[in-house]
Amino acid sequence: MTDGLDDRTRAQLAFLVEADRLKTVLRANPLVDGSRRENTAEHSWHIALMALVLAERSDETVDLGHALALCLVHDLVEIDAGDTPPWDVEGRATKAERETAAADRLFALLPADQAATFRGWWDEFEAAATPEARLARAVDSLAPLVVNHANGGDLWREKGRTEADVRARNARLEAWAPDLVPVVDALVDDAVRKGWL
Amino acid sequence: MTDGLDDRTRAQLAFLVEADRLKTVLRANPLVDGSRRENTAEHSWHIALMALVLAERSDETVDLGHALALCLVHDLVEIDAGDTPPWDVEGRATKAERETAAADRLFALLPADQAATFRGWWDEFEAAATPEARLARAVDSLAPLVVNHANGGDLWREKGRTEADVRARNARLEAWAPDLVPVVDALVDDAVRKGWL
Repeated sequence: MTDGLDDRTRAQLAFLVEADRLKTVLRANPLVDGSRRENTAEHSWHIALMALVLAERSDETVDLGHALALCLVHDLVEIDAGDTPPWDVEGRATKAERETAAADRLFALLPADQAATFRGWWDEFEAAATPEARLARAVDSLAPLVVNHANGGDLWREKGRTEADVRARNARLEAWAPDLVPVVDALVDDAVRKGWL
Repeated sequence: MTDGLDDRTRAQLAFLVEADRLKTVLRANPLVDGSRRENTAEHSWHIALMALVLAERSDETVDLGHALALCLVHDLVEIDAGDTPPWDVEGRATKAERETAAADRLFALLPADQAATFRGWWDEFEAAATPEARLARAVDSLAPLVVNHANGGDLWREKGRTEADVRARNARLEAWAPDLVPVVDALVDDAVRKGWL
């Protein structure tokens, strides 16, 4: 990339420049104002902010900095694998394989010690096996519900999503953050009442 | 917003929905691939990721989770105040006033205790008076240099930015993160060599 930099710094900058591509990965749901679809980089920021605000709802002791790290790296694999929404049945069948290949390539751009740390964060998020991963998974699941509810349900109408679909999608919060389940229920109830689901 | 939610939750969701608007605030610099201008939400994600990767360059003991919180909230005020690039002399004259008014409005959407915490993080970032704030300020300053260098300098050409401009802009890293100064120097040297500055 440039002269005058040691190998460690070059590797760090190469990773950070490659990460910029996450800003071009489009997710299914729109922004709240409906002006365009959301990208995965700004979504990652949004769920980290949600973790900051909603961490108090975790029923476990959470290292918040650790949870934020998981939120920041959880979707980097979409640079190669793209976003795979729940209704993409074909895509879901190969999602794990595609995302693992992406993780193998992307985190290896970092210096070896950091590659191991970042890859470990991604594996941890996927496994949902720690309090921090459960909080990060919970806000990642809650975010589209909050955004689509605030938007008035454009995506739900477009994709023919039903109340049962959205409830099933968020049933996982029972295990990850039971104190957020009433929030899911209230948002879905309201969307049904308004005819958005 | 919805029935079935207590006041605290309503306030938290109102803040998180309002925060979505940061995705529509455009900054001056393009994405690395030049396809469009960057927005402030994805920029905030990018600098938090930079803090994760580059925290080891701080010469101070840094609470990384705290630094990430500062990165995530540092530009929320741009929802009301917009981005004010360094060459916007008129805008710079009123920046502090406009951003303070924005902070007064935006953080007050949160429950009072969280409003105080989040506002405190924003004040802390602005004052650069803690190790965490200095790291966050350093990556916030470094990010446009990394992105514009990787992009090949489109913005620098468009705005007629000179080597002296960019060096002056990043001179602040001497105080915030002296170990990142050689990174700035190498990127600027390389941009000059390639005729981008």
